[in-house]
Amino acid sequence: MATSSPLDRADLRHRVSTALRDCLARQRPRLDAISPNLRPLVDALTAFLLDGGKRLRPAFAYWGWRGAGGRDSDEIVTAVSALEWVQACALIHDDVMDGSDTRRGQPAMHRRFATLHRGSDWLGDADGFGTAMAILLGDVCLIWADEVLNTSGLPTEALLRGQPVYDEMRTEIMAGQYLDVLGQVTGDDSVADAMTVVRYKSAKYTVERPLHLGAALAGGPPELMAAYSEYGLPVGEAFQLRDDVLGVFGDPAETGKPAGDDLREGKRTVLVAKTLERATAAQTAHMRQHLGDPELDDAGIAELREVIAASGALAETEKLIAELTDRALAALDVDCLDPESADVLRELAIAATARRV
Amino acid sequence: MATSSPLDRADLRHRVSTALRDCLARQRPRLDAISPNLRPLVDALTAFLLDGGKRLRPAFAYWGWRGAGGRDSDEIVTAVSALEWVQACALIHDDVMDGSDTRRGQPAMHRRFATLHRGSDWLGDADGFGTAMAILLGDVCLIWADEVLNTSGLPTEALLRGQPVYDEMRTEIMAGQYLDVLGQVTGDDSVADAMTVVRYKSAKYTVERPLHLGAALAGGPPELMAAYSEYGLPVGEAFQLRDDVLGVFGDPAETGKPAGDDLREGKRTVLVAKTLERATAAQTAHMRQHLGDPELDDAGIAELREVIAASGALAETEKLIAELTDRALAALDVDCLDPESADVLRELAIAATARRV
Repeated sequence: MATSSPLDRADLRHRVSTALRDCLARQRPRLDAISPNLRPLVDALTAFLLDGGKRLRPAFAYWGWRGAGGRDSDEIVTAVSALEWVQACALIHDDVMDGSDTRRGQPAMHRRFATLHRGSDWLGDADGFGTAMAILLGDVCLIWADEVLNTSGLPTEALLRGQPVYDEMRTEIMAGQYLDVLGQVTGDDSVADAMTVVRYKSAKYTVERPLHLGAALAGGPPELMAAYSEYGLPVGEAFQLRDDVLGVFGDPAETGKPAGDDLREGKRTVLVAKTLERATAAQTAHMRQHLGDPELDDAGIAELREVIAASGALAETEKLIAELTDRALAALDVDCLDPESADVLRELAIAATARRV
Repeated sequence: MATSSPLDRADLRHRVSTALRDCLARQRPRLDAISPNLRPLVDALTAFLLDGGKRLRPAFAYWGWRGAGGRDSDEIVTAVSALEWVQACALIHDDVMDGSDTRRGQPAMHRRFATLHRGSDWLGDADGFGTAMAILLGDVCLIWADEVLNTSGLPTEALLRGQPVYDEMRTEIMAGQYLDVLGQVTGDDSVADAMTVVRYKSAKYTVERPLHLGAALAGGPPELMAAYSEYGLPVGEAFQLRDDVLGVFGDPAETGKPAGDDLREGKRTVLVAKTLERATAAQTAHMRQHLGDPELDDAGIAELREVIAASGALAETEKLIAELTDRALAALDVDCLDPESADVLRELAIAATARRV
């Protein structure tokens, strides 16, 4: 295994993938026993889960555990792999809600099943079938997440400590997604509301709660929980702001999505909110007119990029990312945190927020 | 409280509604603290969960517990109310998948949010917004189901015994729904495949697994589990066959759906499969042509009803319902089952499968 990335420390990505593969291997015969017609369900989830995701949430949860003094074991790796199942649900359902065509360079789940329908001479509407199947497969992921966590082999008392954090995290991600969808339709432009979405949909869900989950499973002290919040929230916000920048300026080869796709989808990111706050009246009018136009061509994307850069929003966002990252790194200087874990969390903060455009 | 129905024994429906109300009362301030914009989410779930459903699954789980010697307590009522949250997810997501306009006489969840969008001068597509919100609210229900079960106050060892049954049940309902959606698009007409859907989507999910969950929570013996299967599967199948008959011949005042709506939706029920198996070539052709036509008017519905009755499928289905109910009742004659619970399960079997057309 490569160990150049903090995500590969303790062979983590590889071991999480193995845990996911093991879960799928257990589910396949179980569903086969119900009906062989369920095979496309497991095939689709296998392709989705084993496509080489970064395993960022399991990494934060694992190092949250290690940071609290938890020892490395296959059980903790299995337990944190549950977060990839939660994330699979979130992504599959998000793609339906956003009408996204692709995910990590592959067709989105609803498109995959719509294509299956079109190639099969079936009855009814192919897109409706794709949507139905994506809803169901997301539900299955959410259910299997619990099963993976509960059957991970961790002691019952550890699981009982983790449960409230896990529950909190799942409600927060759905709340964040609700506010995000609502923001798209109300056309809410404020930086404050965009930051609320970032906090719940990304910062808490991607970083703070996984760390808390790992720490709770390990029985970490309250001061470590507090340190994880002080580290996790800014690094999670910075991570999402970096994602916003990549969604507009990023290289399709890296993002797995067409260039500027966030602009075509009309995502009300903090970057966009900052642009609208600072731009001239003419620039604002131009932005509002073209943002969310699915037909926006490369020239149109380039014009919006120019507005975002010229308004100063891009520079301000880069500055904010740097400040948040610094604040996160400072929070790791606490005695209750295991030193190796502090090192990895430092590397993760830098890797997840580094400038790549 | 009325006690004429087995569902009202031990004031059960009332107490389950109270547990649901308590859960909503805890969730409301929690979401309010995230953002006041989340109020419509809780309002919509409140309207949906407290609309006077029959609470059939909690009833089977409660009497499954009592039948295994578990004592009445508020904790067990709270625990079994989790099944209403699972069911809310299934219904909200099903209605999106089926494109249903109504649920129990009220607008389906996606329609409710589409209407909110239309009345609010918001951006984007109202139906897409309705679908997105219904997906999210279903996810929230699935998440809160676990939270309700885990925080019910039942002892940890009881919850640990219940968890595998709960996991099994949730995977089965999704598998059943997958096969159902697949059957609609492949136009599969066979009675055997329709019965597989009935078994997983209804018999196991509505009756057998709730009984098993109650028994597992109470630590019931294997022979009771077996008796619950021998009772639960036939009664659950009979219950679904009754529902199929009501979906075609039922009174809208009772079903809460327009008369014959299952025919407009093209549901491949056992009743329809039996009709196609027995009808003349001309009747079959007529059926295949009109089944699933959303524009089907009352005269068209009446014609399809005539085909179903004339083919003998209706009479055969009624006979099957009666046989299944008898078989279920016979399974209750076991020593390991508490006598009061046996009485209630007997009444539930009759009430859930009785002829009402």
